[in-house]
Amino acid sequence: MSLHSEILEQPRCLAGMLENERQHILEIAAKIREHKPAYVMLAARGTSDNAGRYANYLLGGVNRLPLALATPSLFTYYQTPPLMQNALVIGISQSGQSPDIVSVLKEGRDQGCQTLAITNVPGSPITQVADDVIDIHTGPEFATAATKTYSAELMALAMLSAALSGDEQSWQELEKVAGWVEEMCILDSSIAVVAQRYRYMHQCVVLGRGYNYSTAFEWALKLKELTYVEAEPYSSADFMHGPIAMVNGGFPVLAVIPQGKVYSSMLETLSQLKHDLNAELVVISNSEEALALAQTPIRIPAEVPEWLTPLVSIIPAQLFAYHLTAIKGYDTEKPRTINKVTETK
Amino acid sequence: MSLHSEILEQPRCLAGMLENERQHILEIAAKIREHKPAYVMLAARGTSDNAGRYANYLLGGVNRLPLALATPSLFTYYQTPPLMQNALVIGISQSGQSPDIVSVLKEGRDQGCQTLAITNVPGSPITQVADDVIDIHTGPEFATAATKTYSAELMALAMLSAALSGDEQSWQELEKVAGWVEEMCILDSSIAVVAQRYRYMHQCVVLGRGYNYSTAFEWALKLKELTYVEAEPYSSADFMHGPIAMVNGGFPVLAVIPQGKVYSSMLETLSQLKHDLNAELVVISNSEEALALAQTPIRIPAEVPEWLTPLVSIIPAQLFAYHLTAIKGYDTEKPRTINKVTETK
Repeated sequence: MSLHSEILEQPRCLAGMLENERQHILEIAAKIREHKPAYVMLAARGTSDNAGRYANYLLGGVNRLPLALATPSLFTYYQTPPLMQNALVIGISQSGQSPDIVSVLKEGRDQGCQTLAITNVPGSPITQVADDVIDIHTGPEFATAATKTYSAELMALAMLSAALSGDEQSWQELEKVAGWVEEMCILDSSIAVVAQRYRYMHQCVVLGRGYNYSTAFEWALKLKELTYVEAEPYSSADFMHGPIAMVNGGFPVLAVIPQGKVYSSMLETLSQLKHDLNAELVVISNSEEALALAQTPIRIPAEVPEWLTPLVSIIPAQLFAYHLTAIKGYDTEKPRTINKVTETK
Repeated sequence: MSLHSEILEQPRCLAGMLENERQHILEIAAKIREHKPAYVMLAARGTSDNAGRYANYLLGGVNRLPLALATPSLFTYYQTPPLMQNALVIGISQSGQSPDIVSVLKEGRDQGCQTLAITNVPGSPITQVADDVIDIHTGPEFATAATKTYSAELMALAMLSAALSGDEQSWQELEKVAGWVEEMCILDSSIAVVAQRYRYMHQCVVLGRGYNYSTAFEWALKLKELTYVEAEPYSSADFMHGPIAMVNGGFPVLAVIPQGKVYSSMLETLSQLKHDLNAELVVISNSEEALALAQTPIRIPAEVPEWLTPLVSIIPAQLFAYHLTAIKGYDTEKPRTINKVTETK
């Protein structure tokens, strides 16, 4: 097993997840509907925190549940956790081990909230403090950089959202995800070629908005972990409130901009970056107009509905980070300094 | 008026704020206590969003109110805003004009939530959709990069927290803030000297945790807006979950690490960065042990209580960004590309 094979394993993992967990997630959703939570408090770190960013838009936009991202130090070091009246507390952790994430769930349970863990390791500490557990079923992930566990976490959240809304069309769309992801894996060799251009890139920004705010963060994290490029993610709106001042001619901007509700707003930002500031653009999109702005266009299937684009658009982003790592001569399996399981308090 | 004079004006602004708004904020706090909100939904962008990060720890840690940072696109482009049962909705905006922030407050009001605006411009659009308004009283801010309005927003939040907790000692501590900030302004000329060393710095990370998570974000934003350095902010815990892989010998790490509950956790991170990875450290602290790790130590007063350190530690950070801008030969008043008022939807 290697990072490359784990990336290419994702169609199988996602299809398996849908098959194995659908009934269980429907049962969890029924319990949540019964509890009628006022909002969701979600705790996660690193890659799993980026899955939490997807949950923010998905549960907010589709299920109209407000979501707060927990600040775990309030639960550990400060020991004065917020009082969570009628919250659903969700923890996401590949390993299920980080003590700070476990603390948030434990506090939620102690305060009488419903708790849910999403993890790749049944029986891990996080599962001991959760009323319900969604197992993401990817099998062991050997590479330090998480890939298949990220997309499986997104799938768990997408299935939970579909189960909460009870919309049959959502399930039909979920059935197509593995096929779209398979189409993305076919881009492998072409991405290996186009990534060459970024051999000497040392810094960049990564833009996304709405559902793909998560994709921007996760693409940036893979670049930092694997290629050591300082890649900073932004919502395109936050980017306009100051950081755009960094951009001058040739500054690399990576963008995830599928068709959807925030498309026109992001297109305006990308046009300004291209035409006024001469930025270099790498664009993941299913819009010809957006792709035409890019030095490096990466095409995703036209028919993916916006709410599922994060599961599809992350695949070429992972492949881009993987190939750039090899091109730069770094270790794709064990990046310097970091370990697979990070335990923070 | 210039950026430099606006930075140095902060002792006066903060003293004025405390004097002029105390009674009014006590009244607002009484209304909030009466409503008993389940949680706070806070909307802001840019510098004001960093004030929101302070609110997250302050209202969570001191007043035990959970806080969700609003994702404005759910309220604008997606048009399916979350259902905010019994939330207190707070909007922070210097200009009071950004349409997305106004949208969140308007939706909160339409849903029957209590709404509060914090702004520098009485009568601006955000004040039209708020039940209560805290005027931060700084007078016009002419430089594009916000400085005195940031610290005044923090002061408004600190006063609100003190008013909600009803703790007389908190008010006594607030009385000392302007004096501590005055002490920081005296560092002006020495920071002009030490910033020279970073003339050719192009990228860096900025670390903070707990209350000073906000300071890390705001210091990084000033560096991006003014010096065009790609400065990426992190909680020191999130930094361990991947991004630390970027750091090799000489990589610049700026850190805000005053004495307090998260001090020992951050000190461990800084020691690893210094001793194992040979990072370059710029450290703002009131601990001799943390300062001793730094190539560039910046000392804040020993007696500042942790909850108020963000109001004090941001001053040398602003001065550092200001002087580095001048050293690099850039415009301190009107950075390229950005405008004072940014209107996003």
